[in-house]
Amino acid sequence: MKILVLNSGSSSIKFKLLQMPLEKMICSGMVERIGYEDAILSIKKDEINIQETVPIKSHREGLSIIVSYLTHPEKGVIKNPQDIFAVGHRVVHGGDSFAETTLINGAVKDEINYYSALAPLHNPPNLEGIEIAEKLFPTAKQVAVFDTAFYQTMPVKARKYAIPNTFYTEDNIKVYGFHGTSHKYVSEKAIKYLGRETSKIISVHLGNGCSMTAIVNGKSVDHSLGFAPSNGLVMGSRSGDIDHSVIFHLVDGLGYSLNEVKQLLNKKSGMLGLTGSSDLRDIQAKAEEGDKNCQLALEMNAYRIKKYIGSYTAVMNGLDALIFTAGIGENSSLIRKLTCLDMDYLGIKLDSVKNEKRSNVLREINTDSSQVKILVIPTNEELEIAKQVFNLIS
Amino acid sequence: MKILVLNSGSSSIKFKLLQMPLEKMICSGMVERIGYEDAILSIKKDEINIQETVPIKSHREGLSIIVSYLTHPEKGVIKNPQDIFAVGHRVVHGGDSFAETTLINGAVKDEINYYSALAPLHNPPNLEGIEIAEKLFPTAKQVAVFDTAFYQTMPVKARKYAIPNTFYTEDNIKVYGFHGTSHKYVSEKAIKYLGRETSKIISVHLGNGCSMTAIVNGKSVDHSLGFAPSNGLVMGSRSGDIDHSVIFHLVDGLGYSLNEVKQLLNKKSGMLGLTGSSDLRDIQAKAEEGDKNCQLALEMNAYRIKKYIGSYTAVMNGLDALIFTAGIGENSSLIRKLTCLDMDYLGIKLDSVKNEKRSNVLREINTDSSQVKILVIPTNEELEIAKQVFNLIS
Repeated sequence: MKILVLNSGSSSIKFKLLQMPLEKMICSGMVERIGYEDAILSIKKDEINIQETVPIKSHREGLSIIVSYLTHPEKGVIKNPQDIFAVGHRVVHGGDSFAETTLINGAVKDEINYYSALAPLHNPPNLEGIEIAEKLFPTAKQVAVFDTAFYQTMPVKARKYAIPNTFYTEDNIKVYGFHGTSHKYVSEKAIKYLGRETSKIISVHLGNGCSMTAIVNGKSVDHSLGFAPSNGLVMGSRSGDIDHSVIFHLVDGLGYSLNEVKQLLNKKSGMLGLTGSSDLRDIQAKAEEGDKNCQLALEMNAYRIKKYIGSYTAVMNGLDALIFTAGIGENSSLIRKLTCLDMDYLGIKLDSVKNEKRSNVLREINTDSSQVKILVIPTNEELEIAKQVFNLIS
Repeated sequence: MKILVLNSGSSSIKFKLLQMPLEKMICSGMVERIGYEDAILSIKKDEINIQETVPIKSHREGLSIIVSYLTHPEKGVIKNPQDIFAVGHRVVHGGDSFAETTLINGAVKDEINYYSALAPLHNPPNLEGIEIAEKLFPTAKQVAVFDTAFYQTMPVKARKYAIPNTFYTEDNIKVYGFHGTSHKYVSEKAIKYLGRETSKIISVHLGNGCSMTAIVNGKSVDHSLGFAPSNGLVMGSRSGDIDHSVIFHLVDGLGYSLNEVKQLLNKKSGMLGLTGSSDLRDIQAKAEEGDKNCQLALEMNAYRIKKYIGSYTAVMNGLDALIFTAGIGENSSLIRKLTCLDMDYLGIKLDSVKNEKRSNVLREINTDSSQVKILVIPTNEELEIAKQVFNLIS
């Protein structure tokens, strides 16, 4: 059966069409810069890449253009929209209402809308994508896959902040977690690879956003992003963990507005704030040329990951596998090296030769004597969404 | 020689008079509620405790009353102020200007005043205490011992936040650390006890404020409090670590003022926010009676300590000793038990019988097979200050 996976953001729609359960990618693409005259449509099918600049006024128009390509008599891959058996929607915030992938109905949409208050940049376009897809694919089953669902197994002690209880019970202020689809996908791959009944795993997702999850026997027990995708690791332009007193000092002591501080921590911090660039390849190149800020930023980045590895190893009382995934995790041997350096007390020993090799499939990069398996696993959030949709409806 | 140790706070002055290098306490005491008609003077000498309610208008008057007690013809312990060879002043914030205990002169006072911007509740009364002591003990050497000095050895990667560089270089926003005198004192005791050339130590200071320090060969390498004494562990009424996005949500989403949020996180959070009490003995008693909030708060408290232990063990790549100190650290066997439970992967094994014993001196509470020594060490910040003053001037 054909499953279309949609990720509808504030000004873009990404899609992948998959043949399931074969897990075969039929075609993928995206529209970007929705709302502009020079919006961009990209389609990838086999070895063919199409890119066009076209005016796209709205999400509805964007998705219609995608459908017209999919059903194009010559270039297309399906005869008509009825060939799509199900549409899997990535939804960022499911709050505590959704621990599982869910068939969408009116009540589900109301809940997604309710959690827009907690994810104002993500849930509204996610919901818009759903409503447009319902019209364009009226016969398809519409399914929501929540980024937050994987974290519903986390114990309260790891989800609650040490602030008055009513904020937890009434205002829903707690750790929700993000990148759940990715952490679930790679940790399941690792569990299969380990071939063990029980397992303690840490997955390190390093992309535009960065996060880490502690996973015992396939269930998440702790996670580095919290109420919003702001804290934890040093990210491209986000600070990650910072003493909150700094916020008060920036406003009360240095005269910034609170909104400026918010923008500062989310858009101008992290690797960008430390080096002037948020592109890790640039930063690595400059560091090699001797740029001190870039060298320090890379050290700080790896140091933060190290600390979370220690933290999660402590709360799990053990570690079987450490996974690196997503753009940086899969491709930066340097970040992996800096992170794993001098970690043998925790049983982590990187093989520096294996670490430098490249591949598109799961690979082990620890030494033979390493107690902990160090794995590089390419993530595939769209495939994970398609798998979950397939499992739900078949 | 007689050394007077002074800790001058916003509405109190604490003192201890010590005979050095014998480390003998001659007498101690405090004035509280300075500025009120019903201020309280307490003096402790040998087995005698004096407590009086007296009007004390100012710090000057408070310290004068202390001096008149010290020099009292019958009850006193010295003949006249000239008998005090040196006064050691606790100063909370020395910024990056003071890595060592320092003889006070005009330039030093200017620096202490400069850092008042970063410690507005602490440095001004510390400075006031110095200026009054200079008048009341004109022949004594005046020495400043800084809470922050112990953290000057921390590497930049552990002191810097992932925000634009100018905040570090120009605005002095970085990790300064607190409770340094206590962490230094207990870690030196531990190093002597271990009797090793090299050592990796974590000290856990659990009092009104709570903090942890990672210490390699006697030098601090990381610390849980940062720019201000706000983050890190769950404290009596302070939240410790919290996703900073919560602050923006409380203001933008729930309508709190930023000042209310500041008060909330510093005065109404932590154990108080989670249980209604900031007194750990009350909380433990209620937890034993089955109170779920109290049980959860204790778990959260220990869970946070566990995470920092893991974190610091990772960055030090090892651990020789784990120290518990200060009021809660020395007295709550329950917090120690919850913290050390299921930590054998890191080499930590608590002896549950030894953990329950009480004593006023250093004691070891790990099992014989524990790779890591677990030590309870009573802290003594005043003695540490007196030792540092003695070492400087003798």
